[in-house]
Amino acid sequence: MRLRNKPWAYDKIKEHPDLVIPEPQNYNGRWQQEIFKNGNPIHLEIGMGKGAFINGMAKLHPEINFIGIEKYTSVIVSALELTLENQLTNVRLLNIDAGNLSEIFAEGELSRIYLNFSDPWPKNRHEKRRLTYESFLAMYEKVLAKDGEIHFKTDNQGLFEYSLESFSKYGMLIKNISLDLHRSNIKENVMTEYEEKFSKQGNRIYRCEAQFR
Amino acid sequence: MRLRNKPWAYDKIKEHPDLVIPEPQNYNGRWQQEIFKNGNPIHLEIGMGKGAFINGMAKLHPEINFIGIEKYTSVIVSALELTLENQLTNVRLLNIDAGNLSEIFAEGELSRIYLNFSDPWPKNRHEKRRLTYESFLAMYEKVLAKDGEIHFKTDNQGLFEYSLESFSKYGMLIKNISLDLHRSNIKENVMTEYEEKFSKQGNRIYRCEAQFR
Ligand SMILES: C[S@@+](CC[C@H](N)C(=O)[O-])C[C@H]1O[C@@H](n2cnc3c(N)ncnc32)[C@H](O)[C@@H]1O
Ligand SMILES: C[S@@+](CC[C@H](N)C(=O)[O-])C[C@H]1O[C@@H](n2cnc3c(N)ncnc32)[C@H](O)[C@@H]1O
Repeated sequence: MRLRNKPWAYDKIKEHPDLVIPEPQNYNGRWQQEIFKNGNPIHLEIGMGKGAFINGMAKLHPEINFIGIEKYTSVIVSALELTLENQLTNVRLLNIDAGNLSEIFAEGELSRIYLNFSDPWPKNRHEKRRLTYESFLAMYEKVLAKDGEIHFKTDNQGLFEYSLESFSKYGMLIKNISLDLHRSNIKENVMTEYEEKFSKQGNRIYRCEAQFR
Repeated sequence: MRLRNKPWAYDKIKEHPDLVIPEPQNYNGRWQQEIFKNGNPIHLEIGMGKGAFINGMAKLHPEINFIGIEKYTSVIVSALELTLENQLTNVRLLNIDAGNLSEIFAEGELSRIYLNFSDPWPKNRHEKRRLTYESFLAMYEKVLAKDGEIHFKTDNQGLFEYSLESFSKYGMLIKNISLDLHRSNIKENVMTEYEEKFSKQGNRIYRCEAQFR
């Protein structure tokens, strides 16, 4: 994700505390009641970038509450703009690092986690930064409900191989693997920004679901 | 595997009972002592075809006993000829169907199973015929020693996706996945006949190891 200097981004975000929730740890265990004011399941996207995926999903699934997290203010501001444009009521955004998930959500508070085109961190010594490293999986397991799932897409072969192995090592059930998503029988696929770009360049898109058991 | 009519194949095989073992069930539990006359681990290849892989492996690994099984007489005869040519003492061949493994080997008698370019059986209703279907995995688990591994290669995307899911569902640990074997850092790769042919056509070769746990 290319970072542009956007000094106005912080201000823009502060203008919409109803969408980009400040101090999200205050709602730990109470996201449905206090933020969404309904009992719908919560799906989280980690590293959502400019928000094309979460917006597309939220339109298709009004029965789900979506929360997108993105660590860069200069990036999340685009997701904010898109969400405003779409006037979606089932989306909230958090300007945080994924490492803080367990302070923000209670055990079992989430039903699903989406990881789309996560940073690959190809060097061995950076393994711990990959969002499918075991310490992240342990954190996801805590905040996900029983049988909770991770839905994962990437065009990065190395990250996909690593992630399948990491899910397996953790004892997760791997399901619905596609090694070439755009040339398979898929019913519903909402594209992300990276997916648009890299599939146009001819890259294969890899996808799978991994369930805690 | 294209089947040619080879009426002489049966006779040829009968001439070499030391290499293509007749009535293999007689050696259940005694392959090391009675057939190989050593205590080396046994690696089995299922559906070996014309034997390029098992011959290549046996040359590289004199410290391993190799057994190749192939259901078609017209095919195994080529593996026999190759093994004779190579004068290998650590290879035996069985003209049987994989379905009979548990009559031929005692519990834990094998250390590893190779599946190379297994027939894909793409139709859903033929799932049970795939050599990575759960009933086959249960049979492999029985004849393999503790922590025994399956090493699997194929160019068939659908079969690879299916097999990863099947290994995962069975609770196996999936390791060393390569989604493009011929363009990755591999130390040792002995090619099979199908691998030679399909990699030349530009097909990707998929590979993984799955360990019972
Ligand atoms: C490669 S981009 C992909 C963006 C989007 N998901 C897509 O598919 O188009 C990865 C995004 O994840 C964000 N990100 C990476 N690590 C993160 C973390 N630990 N916490 C929150 N966001 C993160 C990055 O800032 C970046 O916007
Ligand atoms: C597609 S060919 C691959 C041959 C070789 N492994 C290669 O990679 O070149 C599959 C082979 O497996 C054999 N085969 C298939 N199912 C089998 C079974 N249940 N038991 C024994 N052999 C089998 C077939 O006869 C055929 O020779």
